Amino acid sequence: MAELPQIPMTKRDLLSMIGKSAGAGAMLMAMAPLGQAHASTFTGPINLQGGGTGKSVLILGAGIAGMVAALELTRAGYQVQVLEYNARVGGRCWSLRGGDSYTELGGATQHCTFSDGNYLNPGPWRIPTEHGGVIHYCKELGVPLEPFQQNNYNAYLHHTDAFDGKPQRYKAIQADYYGHVAELLAKAVRQNALSDAVTAEDAEILLESLRSWGALDRNMRYVASNAASGRRGWAKGPGGGLTAEPIPSQPMDLSSVLKSGLWRNIATHMTNEHQHAIFQPVGGMDRIAAGFGRAVGHLVRHNAKVTAIRQSDAGVVAEYEDTRTGEKLTAAADYCVCTLPLSILAQIPLNVGPDMSAAIRAVPYRPSLKVGLEFKRRFWEQDEQIYGGITSTNLPISQISYPSDKYGSSGPGVLLAAYSGGSFAYEMTALSPEERIRRTLEMGAVIHPQYYEEFVSGISVGWHRVPFVQGCFGMWSEETRARHYSNLCQIDNRVVLAGEHASYIGGWIEGAVTSALDAVTRLHQRIQSA
Amino acid sequence: MAELPQIPMTKRDLLSMIGKSAGAGAMLMAMAPLGQAHASTFTGPINLQGGGTGKSVLILGAGIAGMVAALELTRAGYQVQVLEYNARVGGRCWSLRGGDSYTELGGATQHCTFSDGNYLNPGPWRIPTEHGGVIHYCKELGVPLEPFQQNNYNAYLHHTDAFDGKPQRYKAIQADYYGHVAELLAKAVRQNALSDAVTAEDAEILLESLRSWGALDRNMRYVASNAASGRRGWAKGPGGGLTAEPIPSQPMDLSSVLKSGLWRNIATHMTNEHQHAIFQPVGGMDRIAAGFGRAVGHLVRHNAKVTAIRQSDAGVVAEYEDTRTGEKLTAAADYCVCTLPLSILAQIPLNVGPDMSAAIRAVPYRPSLKVGLEFKRRFWEQDEQIYGGITSTNLPISQISYPSDKYGSSGPGVLLAAYSGGSFAYEMTALSPEERIRRTLEMGAVIHPQYYEEFVSGISVGWHRVPFVQGCFGMWSEETRARHYSNLCQIDNRVVLAGEHASYIGGWIEGAVTSALDAVTRLHQRIQSA
Repeated sequence: MAELPQIPMTKRDLLSMIGKSAGAGAMLMAMAPLGQAHASTFTGPINLQGGGTGKSVLILGAGIAGMVAALELTRAGYQVQVLEYNARVGGRCWSLRGGDSYTELGGATQHCTFSDGNYLNPGPWRIPTEHGGVIHYCKELGVPLEPFQQNNYNAYLHHTDAFDGKPQRYKAIQADYYGHVAELLAKAVRQNALSDAVTAEDAEILLESLRSWGALDRNMRYVASNAASGRRGWAKGPGGGLTAEPIPSQPMDLSSVLKSGLWRNIATHMTNEHQHAIFQPVGGMDRIAAGFGRAVGHLVRHNAKVTAIRQSDAGVVAEYEDTRTGEKLTAAADYCVCTLPLSILAQIPLNVGPDMSAAIRAVPYRPSLKVGLEFKRRFWEQDEQIYGGITSTNLPISQISYPSDKYGSSGPGVLLAAYSGGSFAYEMTALSPEERIRRTLEMGAVIHPQYYEEFVSGISVGWHRVPFVQGCFGMWSEETRARHYSNLCQIDNRVVLAGEHASYIGGWIEGAVTSALDAVTRLHQRIQSA
Repeated sequence: MAELPQIPMTKRDLLSMIGKSAGAGAMLMAMAPLGQAHASTFTGPINLQGGGTGKSVLILGAGIAGMVAALELTRAGYQVQVLEYNARVGGRCWSLRGGDSYTELGGATQHCTFSDGNYLNPGPWRIPTEHGGVIHYCKELGVPLEPFQQNNYNAYLHHTDAFDGKPQRYKAIQADYYGHVAELLAKAVRQNALSDAVTAEDAEILLESLRSWGALDRNMRYVASNAASGRRGWAKGPGGGLTAEPIPSQPMDLSSVLKSGLWRNIATHMTNEHQHAIFQPVGGMDRIAAGFGRAVGHLVRHNAKVTAIRQSDAGVVAEYEDTRTGEKLTAAADYCVCTLPLSILAQIPLNVGPDMSAAIRAVPYRPSLKVGLEFKRRFWEQDEQIYGGITSTNLPISQISYPSDKYGSSGPGVLLAAYSGGSFAYEMTALSPEERIRRTLEMGAVIHPQYYEEFVSGISVGWHRVPFVQGCFGMWSEETRARHYSNLCQIDNRVVLAGEHASYIGGWIEGAVTSALDAVTRLHQRIQSA
């Protein structure tokens, strides 16, 4: 009979025990790879030393970049004022809920009637682990995060010309592509076709690894088997009692998998921004904007449409119009952080040098469309066992994303029923809102025939018709980047630009955050040394 | 100027529009692949027709199998009594929290002192999407689920003999293994080494796919590049402003990746049971047991140690001992569903035929150990950007799993700091509880040097020392399965067995659920036709 020790041990007890039992050497642990996972440039909160007392900064735009700048400059002692076109903060960091209205360029107004708790994020919608700046501010501002389901093996991959137009489960496409790749490489290795590239010793390990990774059989073949079905899904799944034995499914042949093109969707989920773990704010992306709003919202003048920005040796003056009253007004400060999208800024007189001026005009904006559809029930969960994640299709809707919250709820749910870029987005944006919904339903029903039966309402945002940005985000090419990027980011006398367009993380909030931090840090240094 | 349409459209509007604009044909959608994703045999709730009025069933064990049986038989009108060894329901579906005590075989008692809301699941801890039976009962019993983070690209893979013992991020190992596999296969294809296996047309698509999937360059090489770093992580990540440009990281060479053996951990996350989406009950695995407890807890006699089970033409009698009072008692019924683990049942007299008797003795139980350690702060999130997921190591702790809840919380957190099987589990189980904690700390600190500084307390469960099961779960081999499985599951006169051991989903709750459903369905049919 053992003694009856009192557990738990305290840390002190344990250190003492380790000292006694293993000598002091055991207490010196090898260095482990602590620290940043090579994420964005954000490495921790900035701290602007020296203080900005007596100096004022005018910030244009109360999107995330503008609010990061407002927060950090206020902390450093600057007097800050923010002008914002919309009646809300957040810019593209935006959620549409029941009760919201949205009027696009062209004049069409949509009224969102989603049920309580449901929403569409027309703009950014997920937060990669590596976006440490966003995660930092969410924590600081009390914005709770929850997991975003990015890669769901039960979601579909669909191409109208592949598999008779029948959607395939992601798991089956991935398993079969990997299985065939593994089988082919094993074959080449065993034929000594790669003996110049792989040593005999490594070749043995490589074969072992291919069998494990590709679910190959003893003869290094990818065939119907328990191993393969344990990845791609079963013809009949395993269970209990006398109805228990599983029946393996039949893999697709290599040629069908290749010709389907559905393998294109595998790489998507492997990029840093899409790797699990990945998050979303609980309750909608605009919870981040709301968090910033609590901190700096009192500095923001809303419904302010900037019409001109003029700097001189004395300071910066912005002319703006109150969009409710039509009143023409001005705001002045010693310096300016301008976070207006380039698509808007290029339309506004601004006396900066020719290099920055050319840079502002050099960057086209990506077309993008999102459609949210509310359905009476979460049929994707109840009928098809798809909990979150993304279905991809070659139809112009491009994606169907299933909600990453309220799993298993019996109430209505909202699908991101279209998320397109490129020509699809232009095409859909050109349609009237009701025609977009009609087409989205028609296309989505090819994948989910429940669509018509379960449809309740829908809303769409085509970013080229969004008044405050007129495009989705800045599209840099290698060429424009080389020629214009540095010019765009330089401080021009008293003006510095910030926003996702002034970053290498275009289209992500982290770009706006890191751009704003870099801009205010440099502006502060400039002011301190002036 | 466009009209100002009233959005949203109703379903009726849309159906009418579609009818008008595209003809009736557009309303007939092609069949899509609705339905079960080839998951377990669970296809929906059972409904035992006919009723069991007047008949009684004794259920042995109030684990999940016993409680599923109790719930469904009660619904069908049977009189049900359940005998349970523990003072709680759930069996291996169990969570340890601050305030709980646990006495293992050998007599050592551990007192858990975790902070409020923290817990260790010593047994099952995750719910795959394909385990439809468990998900069904969670929904029915009001047990909320949340995502379990299985594959986290930021977690580590570690082998003491690889990379000088330095843990590597999962993302780097996967990206480099895939990159090298893609490069090698591309090379073989371009040398025409596989022309008998792949047509020229397919070879072109295969090369395109390998470039995409493997992040290869234009020359089909896997080298330091933005594409590769976009998977494996950057030397310096991208950001905003003038500090924005990312610096690519250097991939590991093929030989190092292969010799490290760390590729073994890639396949783990691709099996059906580990594919995203995957869930856990909010607040601990025993919330499932508590859900069943609310439904059938009133039928359970606790602290009842079954010592003999005897059946005759008249019925079934179980002898049991009240473990608090030592009192010897009996329970009788017309039929018996016995869900005791085989490791326990094999020690109890039971008059069944020789085939079932042999089957009961044929299945060894898997050794398994779990250790939970509480730390003052979630340093894995704060210092290392690991939010949930699993680190794997060749050290005897085998795994470190990070909590999939309360992300970003500044309070103390509990790691599953060891989850071992095989000889490691036997070895660790043989130690005293405090020695297990000491070794777990020592090993874990190799990966996370913060361990000693942040440690608060720990608790461990070695399943071969757990009194009510004496092992973790039944280990079937192909041979024992062929010889004994059917015999184990047959109804023997008035007795039928159920539990994960009577399933093809060993060690998972879904095995217990589907086994119980299959057993009570057959028992009911037997009774109806008797």
